[in-house]
Amino acid sequence: MLIEIWSDVVCPWCYIGKRRLEEALTSFEHADEVDVVFRSFELDPTAPQVGTESVAEALGRKYGGGVDAVRPMMDRVAVIAAEVGLEFDYEHATHTKTVDAHRLLHEALAQGGPALQRELKERLLAAYFLRGRSMGDHEVLREVAVGAGLDAVRVDAVLAGDEHVGAVRADIDQARAYGATGVPFFVVDRRYGVSGAQPTGVFSELLQRAWDDSHPGLQMLADGTVCGPDGCAV
Amino acid sequence: MLIEIWSDVVCPWCYIGKRRLEEALTSFEHADEVDVVFRSFELDPTAPQVGTESVAEALGRKYGGGVDAVRPMMDRVAVIAAEVGLEFDYEHATHTKTVDAHRLLHEALAQGGPALQRELKERLLAAYFLRGRSMGDHEVLREVAVGAGLDAVRVDAVLAGDEHVGAVRADIDQARAYGATGVPFFVVDRRYGVSGAQPTGVFSELLQRAWDDSHPGLQMLADGTVCGPDGCAV
Repeated sequence: MLIEIWSDVVCPWCYIGKRRLEEALTSFEHADEVDVVFRSFELDPTAPQVGTESVAEALGRKYGGGVDAVRPMMDRVAVIAAEVGLEFDYEHATHTKTVDAHRLLHEALAQGGPALQRELKERLLAAYFLRGRSMGDHEVLREVAVGAGLDAVRVDAVLAGDEHVGAVRADIDQARAYGATGVPFFVVDRRYGVSGAQPTGVFSELLQRAWDDSHPGLQMLADGTVCGPDGCAV
Repeated sequence: MLIEIWSDVVCPWCYIGKRRLEEALTSFEHADEVDVVFRSFELDPTAPQVGTESVAEALGRKYGGGVDAVRPMMDRVAVIAAEVGLEFDYEHATHTKTVDAHRLLHEALAQGGPALQRELKERLLAAYFLRGRSMGDHEVLREVAVGAGLDAVRVDAVLAGDEHVGAVRADIDQARAYGATGVPFFVVDRRYGVSGAQPTGVFSELLQRAWDDSHPGLQMLADGTVCGPDGCAV
């Protein structure tokens, strides 16, 4: 069973939804037959490569009212994050593009498959949300990627060029084709979709439904003349 | 898409059904993405290894009334076979076990995959139904198998021993597990079944339905709070 998750590394509901899906997987009896792959989604492709504003400042400017106006919203999200064990501390993180983080996530998939990509994804989310580190800063990205187990020489080469940018664009196009306007967006076996940081129980139902659907009994569409032990019907 | 066909090499409806499925495949637009694999089914495992009776005599004895009693039935089947281009001429073929033919069909699958197995299956059916040759005679089986492209040394080794007999038994067990009591029995993607030599149109519907089912649109099971270009819903 394949779970594809469109998300961004600076998307709070993506991190919270990831934890809830992980919780659902711990109690799913066929979890060892599930592959989880992350797909790219850029929440704000217009953000600068090198940030000057914090995420709180950028949101405050966008909605109007400044940092004070967005703090209650960030606080509510932080309370929900705490419920799944995540101590959010990112309001001082700089607001930047995330395309380079996504390119590294594709590099991880190419180098070590879904397991290495998952490791990198978790470390990127933790770096941003728990420690407020910038997702546009190549030094940060390099440190996190190498820490996750990616080859350092390849990481430098990817960061220096535009490798995997086509794969990032293709992911975003696929999300649009599915009708996704935001993330997280979960797709199981390219058949069942769920958007948003749903409660764990919704993910459990999604997993069970997709599993049942891919392991059906035989459905007879037509019965006709056969030969059996007693001869051939004519 | 995988089509598995349980059949026997001495089963007239199997040969006729094979032709009708082939006809359906010629007009199926995704035929190049379809694999066809034959599974074993022994119509009469109690038949002798070396035959003394013809198939007509064996049927006449079984139903009572002798050869004359079964001829009308065989003639009716022959008329239907002629409609798909098969000139049946097998009433003098000897009635034997078919397990060795099935073991060679498994050997073909191992040696050259579904394409080689299909070639052997067609040649075995033609040898029996069109030329009345015995499916229990090792000389016949060897000639047909080598003619189909199997390695002669391996064919001799398989015929001399009992190789693949476990695979033949497993196929028959799987047919029983599906509830099949006779053949031909067609299963697509282990999901949809059809028994009997159905009209071509039924096979066309089966192919289309299985295709549609394996290429579904995305079905959304739940929509929830996401982050999008305009921020995160809270």
